[in-house]
Amino acid sequence: MAIRIFITGGTFDKEYNELNGKLYFKDSHLGDLLEMGRSKVPVEIRTLMMVDSLEMTDEDRELIIHQCNNCDETQIVITHGTDTMADTAKALAQKVPDKTIILTGAMIPIKFGSSDGLFNLGSALAFAQTLPVGVYVAMNGRYFNWDNVWKNKQTGVFEEIK
Amino acid sequence: MAIRIFITGGTFDKEYNELNGKLYFKDSHLGDLLEMGRSKVPVEIRTLMMVDSLEMTDEDRELIIHQCNNCDETQIVITHGTDTMADTAKALAQKVPDKTIILTGAMIPIKFGSSDGLFNLGSALAFAQTLPVGVYVAMNGRYFNWDNVWKNKQTGVFEEIK
Amino acid sequence: MAIRIFITGGTFDKEYNELNGKLYFKDSHLGDLLEMGRSKVPVEIRTLMMVDSLEMTDEDRELIIHQCNNCDETQIVITHGTDTMADTAKALAQKVPDKTIILTGAMIPIKFGSSDGLFNLGSALAFAQTLPVGVYVAMNGRYFNWDNVWKNKQTGVFEEIK
Amino acid sequence: MAIRIFITGGTFDKEYNELNGKLYFKDSHLGDLLEMGRSKVPVEIRTLMMVDSLEMTDEDRELIIHQCNNCDETQIVITHGTDTMADTAKALAQKVPDKTIILTGAMIPIKFGSSDGLFNLGSALAFAQTLPVGVYVAMNGRYFNWDNVWKNKQTGVFEEIK
Repeated sequence: MAIRIFITGGTFDKEYNELNGKLYFKDSHLGDLLEMGRSKVPVEIRTLMMVDSLEMTDEDRELIIHQCNNCDETQIVITHGTDTMADTAKALAQKVPDKTIILTGAMIPIKFGSSDGLFNLGSALAFAQTLPVGVYVAMNGRYFNWDNVWKNKQTGVFEEIK
Repeated sequence: MAIRIFITGGTFDKEYNELNGKLYFKDSHLGDLLEMGRSKVPVEIRTLMMVDSLEMTDEDRELIIHQCNNCDETQIVITHGTDTMADTAKALAQKVPDKTIILTGAMIPIKFGSSDGLFNLGSALAFAQTLPVGVYVAMNGRYFNWDNVWKNKQTGVFEEIK
Repeated sequence: MAIRIFITGGTFDKEYNELNGKLYFKDSHLGDLLEMGRSKVPVEIRTLMMVDSLEMTDEDRELIIHQCNNCDETQIVITHGTDTMADTAKALAQKVPDKTIILTGAMIPIKFGSSDGLFNLGSALAFAQTLPVGVYVAMNGRYFNWDNVWKNKQTGVFEEIK
Repeated sequence: MAIRIFITGGTFDKEYNELNGKLYFKDSHLGDLLEMGRSKVPVEIRTLMMVDSLEMTDEDRELIIHQCNNCDETQIVITHGTDTMADTAKALAQKVPDKTIILTGAMIPIKFGSSDGLFNLGSALAFAQTLPVGVYVAMNGRYFNWDNVWKNKQTGVFEEIK
């Protein structure tokens, strides 16, 4: 069965508006990345929202939970801003009991040449195919259980809480 | 424990010689890719050779087998040319019984902007962390058991033999 | 004699801060661009400031004028933010009477893969070698006299005033 | 009046064939480069051939000469392989007496991220707008008269003959 991919925005998909010099969301680059990676993993992609994760609301998270519970697929990748990725993981763990869910994102927009987004997407799809039921964050080449991860704001690196 | 990465060359690491217009090997780009991916996976990297996989000899494969058996690590990623990746996987499966080995590579050199190498490296490191003992090929976002994979030369895509 | 290059900042040199998601200035990318372009034009480079051109003050412009008048070179390229590039050109034209000065910049930061900065730098250096004494803006592949240019804020394109 | 651009191939437009690992010509990247440079210079583009300049024949050069003489435009940019760029410049100088012709190219294919092609194109368009009637080579940020240029094969740099 295919892997479901839900897009929620985050740095991953930010673009540079050359008229006002600000970063903004237009379309997702996920399809371009899968093509660049020559991915042949069967996927079903849906964009749920395009938001900075600092502005993600409880209602937004309810929508993500609802979509995870109601899709046919049991393996799910969610692209998400890094700042509240661990919060959304926690919300999902409480209400989506029977699926393998991988949250991933990027520290640098894909549209920048040196983004980590392509690397993270490769690892997230791999973790979705191999990890047991549960909710995980996949960043920095590693995976973390939802209840043992935080983003170190000083370094930008995801770490175990310990 | 760290993941061992062995570099053997392949399209992955080819560069363009601007004086004669030919592709050649200089240094591996693996370190650059891990940095771009903001990888924090502990790794030990060793370059075993820098060859086009069509020119890989039985002696080369013996060296790879020897290195896999003699390193401390039990999770191994090997970057390798795509043309004979399945052959090397088969050779490894016969002589390295107790480790998780992931072979990966790229269809386009890393030094080209639109390479699949970064995506493949992300997935290979993830598979190395999660798959049981065995020898696998990780390409196109998927993993294949060593005895059920071939590269379709017409399409450049890895597929099950079936 | 060499061409003098003065760096003043602008979109050209902005970078993405992955810890807070904001654009900022670190070091100039001018040296990297000249290397990428395999430029063999003799140049003398000096960074005068690193500012968004909307925040450039009269004092900043006095400094640029002073530096243009006091350097030995008679051909000068200035990298500059696009929003007030025409204003600085006007200020220079009134006080630097005997040099060929080319202002250029970029609509997209160099660090983004698809920047116009490398193209603009190539054209600015060429115009500096060939245009007579005067102050010019070089953008969009064209050159404009200082008294006949504005940036169309709706389209981001430089045009004659007419 | 517009600038005429003739495409003849060269490293500039080479691509990587991921099925056989060889470089080849498909379509020109000139339009993409002009878009990336946000160029608003009026241009008329025609592809005359797509060849490695080491394989360019006398008949090919006759065709280029014919096209230069018969187009309406008086400012012409020709993209060309670097190895015989000086030879074609000489042939043009003998038979196209009344136009400004700029030959340019690239040491690295455009499709590689770090190509000099975008820089060279910016400079070539600028030289075409500003140099008097004559035939010139524009490489390394500089321009050379047709009778005083050669490519140093050891360094890959264009130089005066002296």
